This record gives sequence, structure tokens and C-alpha cells, in this order.
Amino acid sequence: MEEIYVFGHKSPDTDTICSAIAYAKIKNWTPARLGEINEETKFVLDRFDIHVPELLGNVEGKKVILVDHNEFQQSADGIEKAEILEVIDHHKIKFSCDKPVKFLTEPSGSTATIIAKYFESDIEKIKSTDEKKKINGLLLSAVLSDTVVFKSPTTTEEDKKIANDLAKAAGISDIIKFGIDIKKANGSIKGKPVESIIMADFKEFDFNGNKVGIGQTEIVDINEIYEIKDEISKFMENLKNGKYEMTVFVATDIIKEGSELFFAGDKSKIEKAFNAKFEGNFVYIPGLMSRKKQVVPNLQRVF
Amino acid sequence: MEEIYVFGHKSPDTDTICSAIAYAKIKNWTPARLGEINEETKFVLDRFDIHVPELLGNVEGKKVILVDHNEFQQSADGIEKAEILEVIDHHKIKFSCDKPVKFLTEPSGSTATIIAKYFESDIEKIKSTDEKKKINGLLLSAVLSDTVVFKSPTTTEEDKKIANDLAKAAGISDIIKFGIDIKKANGSIKGKPVESIIMADFKEFDFNGNKVGIGQTEIVDINEIYEIKDEISKFMENLKNGKYEMTVFVATDIIKEGSELFFAGDKSKIEKAFNAKFEGNFVYIPGLMSRKKQVVPNLQRVF
Repeated sequence: MEEIYVFGHKSPDTDTICSAIAYAKIKNWTPARLGEINEETKFVLDRFDIHVPELLGNVEGKKVILVDHNEFQQSADGIEKAEILEVIDHHKIKFSCDKPVKFLTEPSGSTATIIAKYFESDIEKIKSTDEKKKINGLLLSAVLSDTVVFKSPTTTEEDKKIANDLAKAAGISDIIKFGIDIKKANGSIKGKPVESIIMADFKEFDFNGNKVGIGQTEIVDINEIYEIKDEISKFMENLKNGKYEMTVFVATDIIKEGSELFFAGDKSKIEKAFNAKFEGNFVYIPGLMSRKKQVVPNLQRVF
Repeated sequence: MEEIYVFGHKSPDTDTICSAIAYAKIKNWTPARLGEINEETKFVLDRFDIHVPELLGNVEGKKVILVDHNEFQQSADGIEKAEILEVIDHHKIKFSCDKPVKFLTEPSGSTATIIAKYFESDIEKIKSTDEKKKINGLLLSAVLSDTVVFKSPTTTEEDKKIANDLAKAAGISDIIKFGIDIKKANGSIKGKPVESIIMADFKEFDFNGNKVGIGQTEIVDINEIYEIKDEISKFMENLKNGKYEMTVFVATDIIKEGSELFFAGDKSKIEKAFNAKFEGNFVYIPGLMSRKKQVVPNLQRVF
């Protein structure tokens, strides 16, 4: 039988990787990834003793299932010539396909929430108790990661309810502690190259024909960012040149619940987008937690 | 509370109208339509004693739910500025939305199949037995209509299974006879103006930047078409001029299981698309039943 690959977006995060693995396990397909996993995801996979999925190159001609993304720009090379069988996602939609496919999106806090909701009975059917526990654990980790332990404004009541069900099934009693352990796994950014901090979770968007790149990192002490602000600014500027109309980097303090926003590009645009005054090329915005729900819509409006 | 409108595509067919009514009834929203209903749909609504839904104009600023279509071109005027809450459909996808919405498509034979599949438990919860029976009857009619009583190549095993369940719940014993009664309701095209025959189920497509309009009618005696072929050709030509790169009209004989295909436009393109020789501007193609699965993909390839 021809292989069917399930994968999330480039610069994978925990929701992308865990959703791909869980959905592939549920349906007996092959999980894959489009980039290196981060330390947070590594922590989760180690916790449930799961192998890192294989790295996929060009998918031209392959049968594929997209999770946690639907825009081709964020997907595998050759996606235009792949046979897309299904899409499961919780992001905004920019998709076209010449034939009907199974396409399932909802405004949930994570893709894992949607998989847990719609495929609960399939998970129930899995015979191995150990396997079942692992899938529930992976999905729970993804919900906690993508909702920043329910702190992100993208969090829905359904996310919380489903996460609690998953925690029970996975045998995890203190869900909040488990969530914070996951988020802390990315650990300190100290000593890491600036490139790896910014590019670890970096996505490209097309706003009215303008290419904009937005990276995000989540940390437990925002002060670490200020020590490398000059390096960040320089990297952002180089990244922009010739490739992007604007680059943005969001360093989110998950304890303080706010973000330091860096940018390279048209200052008037970003000031208008966030209704904020940038002294240099960065500013702290309290309450800013979500790229999807706060950064992207604000920027989209000004392009 | 602000009204939420549920509607299908322009030039409504039975799946569009019945899916909109059924889904609106399930969720307590307001069903609507974007054009006049045809005689087949009228037959179905009369059969279950259901009012024709209201005609909707510009939807700018309104909260809307799209069923049986997802392309803006086939939707209400002002759709770009409406607040789209959900999409349920079984067609190819060409959609974008600045925020995540509930978007559910599957390659089923009808939108009604998807509604029956995913909202079965909601239908079960409806208290009035009479109301429940009507919803099952409407959904059954839509499945039978859109799959041409299971003869269309778009028909899936799931369509048949769900239709049988719906028939039981609606108290209809001879499902095939009921289906043929529905399809016959459009009746003879004799005496009808050519415009109303071609435009009753007419959809616009964008193939690589080229606007193509495709109409379809289903009849029980293909010979009726030959009597008005000159009128059809003339109408197709006028319809094309200035507005479309190509116009196509598919007259499908549901008993004979084939279609007479008329076109106005570049002959080499349509001959290539259907691998057929057109003597004039029409040709009979055995087995051709589905605009979605056969006509659209074939044409799309040559533009």
C-alpha cells in the first residue's frame, strides 16, 4: 500500500508534531515533520517514549494529510503537486484544491483539541492500553503547549474540557504543573544563537501580496531578551532584506503574560497595527500572547 | 439576538435548499436562499410541507453560514464583507478567511450526507417527532437529488448507507421510487424558455483566471433537447459574449445515464478536455453525469 504522510507546518512546534503523530497512529498512517523539533517537543516525546517522526523532503506526487496548517506557504516543498487527502487545522484558512477533500477546521486553541474531539471513538478502539495512553498524552501536551497552559486568548472552554478528559486518560493528575513543565522545557535562551531562537518557530504570511515573516519564542524570564536585543535587531534586519516586506519577532513571557515585540520594516505600519509607540524597533505589549489571534490579524489590517 | 443566515449557492438546487433548511432547523438559525427554487425543490418542500426560505440580498455585515458551496463567486453579494461563521460543503475548495472558522468538507455525494453524518445526535435531540421526520425527509431528498438517485459517479457508499438510515427515520419505504419521483418533478422541458432551462442550475468557475459558466439540467428524455438545440446554441453564444471565456451546458438524461454537452468558446479546448470530436457545438457523452466530478475537472485541466 502506498504510504500516506501526516505532517504539520515548517518550523514545527509541539501541536504540529504531536497532532501529526497522534492522528497518524489513530489511522495507521506515517507521521512526518518538515523541520527540526524544538526542546519543548523533545521533552514531550521523551516523556511518552515516542520516536521523532521522519523528516520529509519534497512531497510531489505523494499522498499527504496536513495537520495544524492549511496554507501552502507553510507546508512542504512540492505541496502543489501532492495529492492532499485531508486537512485538520485551527488556523485561518487560505486553501484551494481542485477536488473535494476532507477539510476540518475549527477555531480551537490547538489542532490536538479537534483531533481529540472528532476521533475520540477511534482512540477508544485502539487495543493496546499503553498505546492509547501515549496518544492521549501527546494530544494533551499539544493542547497545553498551544494554549500556553490555557493562558493564550485563543483558549476555548472546549480546550479546557478536552484537556481534562485527555489528562484523565493519560494518567496525569496535575495538569497545570505538567503544562508548565512542558513550557519550561524550552528553557533559558541563554547561550543559544539568535538565529535558532528566532527561527525555531517562524512562519511566513502573505498579507495582500506582501510577504511578512513572524517568529515567536516563549520564555519564563523576559529579561534574557534585553541582553541580546542588538543581536536580535541586526538579525531581523538581515532576514528582512530582499526576502520580506517586514519581519517580526515576538518574545512572549508566559509568566508575566505579555510580549516584547521586535520588527524590521515600515515603522508607521507596525505602530498603526499595534497602536503602540516604538522607541527603537521593539516595545513591550502587556497581554500579547498569541501570534494567531493577536499579531497576525493586527498586521494584516495595515497591509 | 442577531440573526444567523444559512444558505447555499446561487441558482439553488435541492441539496442547497434542503441542506440550508435542515441545518438551520437543527441549530435554530434562519434558512435563506440566493435565487428562485426549481420545480424539483418545490416538489420536495411541498412533500414535507415546508415553507420556501426567504430570499437574501446583499449579506455585507451579516453573520452567515455557507452550505453546499465555499467559493465566493457562487455565494451571496457582499460575502467578502460578511462574518462567515461556518462552512459545510462537498465541493472542491477555494476559500480564504482571515480568522479560523468551522469549515467542514468531505468528498460526499451531497452536503446533506455530511450534515446527516455529523449532526445525527443533534437531530435526535429535536423534541417534535413531526419536525424530526421532516428534517430526515429533507436530507434524504437532498442526497437522492444530488447523487441522481445514486447514479452519479460522485455517489459514495456512505451516501447510500446514510440515505437508507434517513429513509427509515422519515418513514419512506421505497427509496428508489421516491428518488425518481423527485428527479421527475422537474418534468419535461417542453414549453419552457431556454433561458430558464440553462440558468436554473448555472455556476461560475475561475479556471486559472478564465471565467467559465457551466449550466446543467437533468431530464428523463434527451430527445427533448434536440428540438431546441438551435435556441440553446444561440443563447450560449450570447451568454458567453463579453462575460465568459467559455459557456457550457450539460443536459443529463438520468435514465440513459449520459449527457448532451453544448458549449460556446474555443473548440480545441473543449475537444481536448473531453477527448471528443464536436461536429457542431454539441456532442453526446455516455456516462457523463456529474458537473463536479467530470465536467469541472476536465475543463480545468485545459485552461
